[in-house]
Amino acid sequence: MSTLLEIENDAIRLPPPPRTPRTLRVALAGCGTVGGELVRLLHHGAAEIRARHGVRVRLVRVLVAHRGRPRPAELDPALLTTDLDAFLAEDADVVVEAIGGVDPALRIARTALGRGRRLVTANKALIAAHGPELALLARRHRGRLDFESAVAGGIPVIRALRDSLGLTGIARVRGILNGTTNFILTRLDEGWRYADALADAQARGFAEANPARDLSGEDATDKLRILAWLAFGIRPDALVLRRRGIDPDPERLAADARLLGGAARLVAESVETESGVVAAVEPVIVPLAGPLGRTRGEENVVLIESRSNGGITLSGPGAGGGPTASSLLADLVRGAGRLARPAAEPPVPVNDTREHRWALSVVRTIHAAGVLDRTLARAGVPTSTVLADGDRRVAVTEPVGWQRIDLALRVLGAELLAPVVSRVEVSV
Amino acid sequence: MSTLLEIENDAIRLPPPPRTPRTLRVALAGCGTVGGELVRLLHHGAAEIRARHGVRVRLVRVLVAHRGRPRPAELDPALLTTDLDAFLAEDADVVVEAIGGVDPALRIARTALGRGRRLVTANKALIAAHGPELALLARRHRGRLDFESAVAGGIPVIRALRDSLGLTGIARVRGILNGTTNFILTRLDEGWRYADALADAQARGFAEANPARDLSGEDATDKLRILAWLAFGIRPDALVLRRRGIDPDPERLAADARLLGGAARLVAESVETESGVVAAVEPVIVPLAGPLGRTRGEENVVLIESRSNGGITLSGPGAGGGPTASSLLADLVRGAGRLARPAAEPPVPVNDTREHRWALSVVRTIHAAGVLDRTLARAGVPTSTVLADGDRRVAVTEPVGWQRIDLALRVLGAELLAPVVSRVEVSV
Repeated sequence: MSTLLEIENDAIRLPPPPRTPRTLRVALAGCGTVGGELVRLLHHGAAEIRARHGVRVRLVRVLVAHRGRPRPAELDPALLTTDLDAFLAEDADVVVEAIGGVDPALRIARTALGRGRRLVTANKALIAAHGPELALLARRHRGRLDFESAVAGGIPVIRALRDSLGLTGIARVRGILNGTTNFILTRLDEGWRYADALADAQARGFAEANPARDLSGEDATDKLRILAWLAFGIRPDALVLRRRGIDPDPERLAADARLLGGAARLVAESVETESGVVAAVEPVIVPLAGPLGRTRGEENVVLIESRSNGGITLSGPGAGGGPTASSLLADLVRGAGRLARPAAEPPVPVNDTREHRWALSVVRTIHAAGVLDRTLARAGVPTSTVLADGDRRVAVTEPVGWQRIDLALRVLGAELLAPVVSRVEVSV
Repeated sequence: MSTLLEIENDAIRLPPPPRTPRTLRVALAGCGTVGGELVRLLHHGAAEIRARHGVRVRLVRVLVAHRGRPRPAELDPALLTTDLDAFLAEDADVVVEAIGGVDPALRIARTALGRGRRLVTANKALIAAHGPELALLARRHRGRLDFESAVAGGIPVIRALRDSLGLTGIARVRGILNGTTNFILTRLDEGWRYADALADAQARGFAEANPARDLSGEDATDKLRILAWLAFGIRPDALVLRRRGIDPDPERLAADARLLGGAARLVAESVETESGVVAAVEPVIVPLAGPLGRTRGEENVVLIESRSNGGITLSGPGAGGGPTASSLLADLVRGAGRLARPAAEPPVPVNDTREHRWALSVVRTIHAAGVLDRTLARAGVPTSTVLADGDRRVAVTEPVGWQRIDLALRVLGAELLAPVVSRVEVSV
């Protein structure tokens, strides 16, 4: 099997590759929904991370508030501490902060960055309030600050703004940044009562026991401050922002939107106008068929409009432990390898034998239609539907592998018939 | 005005920041649509790049095939050379390759990376054929290889796969990767003739004079090989791939799709199955309302399904000099600064005075309706439509700034009325 380590041109002499992967010592603050999920990902993904990124990730200390709570089975209990000073004394390569809130997260962040270490955080409140200070601290001490998971869960929007789009002149950033309220609004669209929708969001782990910061738009506001910082260079805490949530009457909000033929969404946006940068988080009645109206459930979406690059849209899971922990992990190993190496045992490339439905169309003659039907039957391709339009005849098959269609096409070619063939993903 | 350089906690002592931005010496191979656009972006964006990324980008040499062709006014003609050896002798920090094709692009790439320099390329054919070799060369010589612009123009899909999603177990990568064929198929959906649609694509600069590689799916195939490499670790040239384009009869293809109630799209996908990784580039009849069917004109879309992170969707401009050059520029300054600094003169955060339409809804009494109408009129807020539903009454305003609505709400609050307020983006 081929691997990426082959070289075609042996005229290029190369030094031997490094043999032993570097070990990354990681201290984790917080082991709740997100932190616990990260522990599981690190445990079960260890071999893949080592193979692809050339690093071995070793958890060296885990700070928790209460010792008695249930923890993932994958976590060595000896790593647990409730002592902040003992945690801070641990000189890890990377500190992952998954506590939330500003205290003691800010102290943890300052300590790690002040030592020139890397801080990876999912904490939007911390970055919205102290991002520029922490970024400067990282720069001065040659540490590194990463917070992809702080905004829009599993969608790499921070990376898109930091690395690429930030430089080409952004005109507007706009999106749905709170999965809880979007889940509730979608349920209300479907005719649910508000109390049931909220309880469902809580049961699925999207909404906190106290969802006030989601409903009031404060959570989305923290995230928008971070996006506006990266997009426009404005201190997140200096952004002038109009905020209204979906409270106090989300049912009426959804009903008003229905009456106007649209959908209610909690929209966050920041726009560069002639006088300066404006920002708002508020309920907006949007068209059902647009990118915001189509964003349903706990999904998030971010639209970035740049002056030189048109607009790009990023969407995906915005809430939940899995996507957030996955983003934390991505930040954690980011920069470890320059280009991901192949997995230890990369999957094998094989022929596609999956079964699909196919449409084969021929034109003009009754002869052609007869030959098409007969040939498909002989090649063992059952036809589910035949449609006709003018002089065109389209046969839609039952699910079969491409090999059988290919066989039929060879026979048809010999009869001088060359149908137009499409794979079919609509129901007919 | 606030800047990001303020520090709140003066207990943290910091060394002075570096004063002079680093100069990045750039050699550019190719000065056609993409290269020419990059020259313009570098010229007009110089101050912004310096401020945000702390680097001064200096063009030191530009390789072209023909001296006589028209070049951007922003290009110093003294930098032009038609001599490949003279170009290779130039020891730039970054070589940007925007020629296309494998020869002499491969020689340029090997030379730059063999010297430990950075190579930034938009060349999908080069990466599809030689990506792993070049990546290895970069790793061994501590150079760097970037090719964001090789796939899906302005959409940061390479970055998403390299830095974050690649590690969390990708199950499927799927999308529309060729802007030219998608533009043509969209035009055919609208009832155009194929010859006119192609001519229009060429006039807009999406399609080459010889569009055969687009129509046959070869262009999309190169891009899919690159995505499958990053997603699954399979050598791009080892991927087993079924390829069919939109030729020879795109009109019939579009008509067949219409007959089946869907839209024809040239879909590229690679999927990990139980037996291995399969791949195909072929016409698929997709639902009109799905993410592929909704992708119109020269847009591209990429759906990445990961095992631990759900699915994310990235969409945006896939063709044209602007988005591609913009992606080249992003790769060029990537890693120059660790976190983008504020622009030299960041825009000022200001109050939102933009005018929007608003919906204000009240319930129950005729009294409430009368008070609402009167108050809006007194606050100078013209109402365009009033809708009623059961005991609810919704007034939709003409476009006015939030300040007036806020004023009206204060008056209504004094009358013990608290309407539910939404911004309206649907036509009523």
